[in-house]
Amino acid sequence: MEKMITFGHKSPDTDTICSAIVMSDLQRKLGKDVDAKRLGDLNKETKFALEHIGVQAPELIEKVEDGQEVILVDHNEFSQSADNIENAKIKMVVDHHRICDFKTAEPLYYRAEPVGCTSTILYKLYKENGVEIDKKIASLMLSAIISDTLLLKSPTKTDEDEKAIHELAKIAELDYEKYGLEMLKAGTDLSDLSAKELIELDCKEFDLNGKKAKVAQVNTADIADMMTRKEEIEEAINADINANNVDVFVLAITDIINSNSQAIVLGNSSNIFETAFGKNLENNTAFLPGVVSRKKQIIPVLEKKS
Amino acid sequence: MEKMITFGHKSPDTDTICSAIVMSDLQRKLGKDVDAKRLGDLNKETKFALEHIGVQAPELIEKVEDGQEVILVDHNEFSQSADNIENAKIKMVVDHHRICDFKTAEPLYYRAEPVGCTSTILYKLYKENGVEIDKKIASLMLSAIISDTLLLKSPTKTDEDEKAIHELAKIAELDYEKYGLEMLKAGTDLSDLSAKELIELDCKEFDLNGKKAKVAQVNTADIADMMTRKEEIEEAINADINANNVDVFVLAITDIINSNSQAIVLGNSSNIFETAFGKNLENNTAFLPGVVSRKKQIIPVLEKKS
Repeated sequence: MEKMITFGHKSPDTDTICSAIVMSDLQRKLGKDVDAKRLGDLNKETKFALEHIGVQAPELIEKVEDGQEVILVDHNEFSQSADNIENAKIKMVVDHHRICDFKTAEPLYYRAEPVGCTSTILYKLYKENGVEIDKKIASLMLSAIISDTLLLKSPTKTDEDEKAIHELAKIAELDYEKYGLEMLKAGTDLSDLSAKELIELDCKEFDLNGKKAKVAQVNTADIADMMTRKEEIEEAINADINANNVDVFVLAITDIINSNSQAIVLGNSSNIFETAFGKNLENNTAFLPGVVSRKKQIIPVLEKKS
Repeated sequence: MEKMITFGHKSPDTDTICSAIVMSDLQRKLGKDVDAKRLGDLNKETKFALEHIGVQAPELIEKVEDGQEVILVDHNEFSQSADNIENAKIKMVVDHHRICDFKTAEPLYYRAEPVGCTSTILYKLYKENGVEIDKKIASLMLSAIISDTLLLKSPTKTDEDEKAIHELAKIAELDYEKYGLEMLKAGTDLSDLSAKELIELDCKEFDLNGKKAKVAQVNTADIADMMTRKEEIEEAINADINANNVDVFVLAITDIINSNSQAIVLGNSSNIFETAFGKNLENNTAFLPGVVSRKKQIIPVLEKKS
């Protein structure tokens, strides 16, 4: 039997990477040898965080073997997980997303809470299990919560995330606001990415009543600057739509300073977006004031109206 | 908005009924007004427990309204839940089964652990939340754990169930072995049930790669005694198969004293059972030595081989 492994979702973000490393640390301290893995390239925000903290990135894998024992963090939907996940043995899930496209043959440990970040739940698990949190682990969880809650500005933020940030910042000995803004800004430098890489950076696939939807999100400090690349981005989206039979592709360009998003929407079923948000697309775009959370402000809207 | 409600699965057993009452108590003590409900008639074991403890049965409901806020206990599969559950708002699940046929549009609180009984997890939630457990609530949780673990004899039993039983027995001021055997025996008196009622008493429906399977279980102190009713039981099973297009129906008659089961298996796809267990049916029956747990020793076997 292969050693147990833990990983987050495809198109990994800072929560997914940090939570996998943290979960592996927690399990080891509880006596189980579990390796952290990742399902894709690190984004710049995550690279900044890991370099700052001095922690190595988990090893890249693409698929899991039949019967491999796994712990999923920060996701549960099989379409967002490792290839062949349906034949793995899922022993545990710690997540903060809705549950969908997930099943097991046997009982498991599943811990989901409607908080802003997986690391907030992991923070509680350390406390519940009486396991001490060291400085590096605290810094990883802190980075994950800052990333997922956009420095506590996202509507997905809960009191528990806020409490965790303050307590973790103390252990990490970090000025979380200064560090957090630097980390978020490092993530918005997407100038060296091709349009294809840009739309694949943080992209999730969903089934909307039989229609294949992809919702990608990129953070920026300046929407107008990103929109200068609109033409090549649309070409990349259309290529993805054709290659993967996508019915509707939404790219949310999120302004992390002013907390708004600009959406670029393409695909034969882009009317799903128009109906859901009650907005007509103009040149394939729509401005979404106050929208920063894919999970709380985009996906549920698309799901309810499709 | 209707008041939030909590309930366990259809064909309710002692864990499902007790855990719903206990969850409603826990939520009230945490400041949320939640009513316990049930989705079917009480079995004799549960009646014995509620009468002994002096607690009223929850109110019967059959369906939930669109948008109703609910807490599921002791189940998650929609096919085992209230009618129209797919249009309810599931806020929380506390369960100890595999996850299947379950989805939500939004993040929720989900707590599953691979322990023997839902009430064992509820017991931990009282402790985690610092809520005191009173004598009646302790007796309800104790009854649920005794029922699900067959007085700690089932292979589904874990150290956590055992620990909970001992601590709850103290609060409940009950000799749990004496009380437990009386309660389990009360449940095996099925003489006044028709064959139809008998097979519906604790029956769960599953999808086995597109085949509709039902697995019912009854406890007995004497398998031979139950088998005197084989002919009328088979008639009832065949009527259910025809009325509901069931592909394979398994009735496990479980000897709670000696920890074995006799299976009666009918349906066009009864070969699924034969392949899975590597046994040929004789007169539609097979003896399963050491098998007492549907969840751990029957369902996973059927699932893997179908």
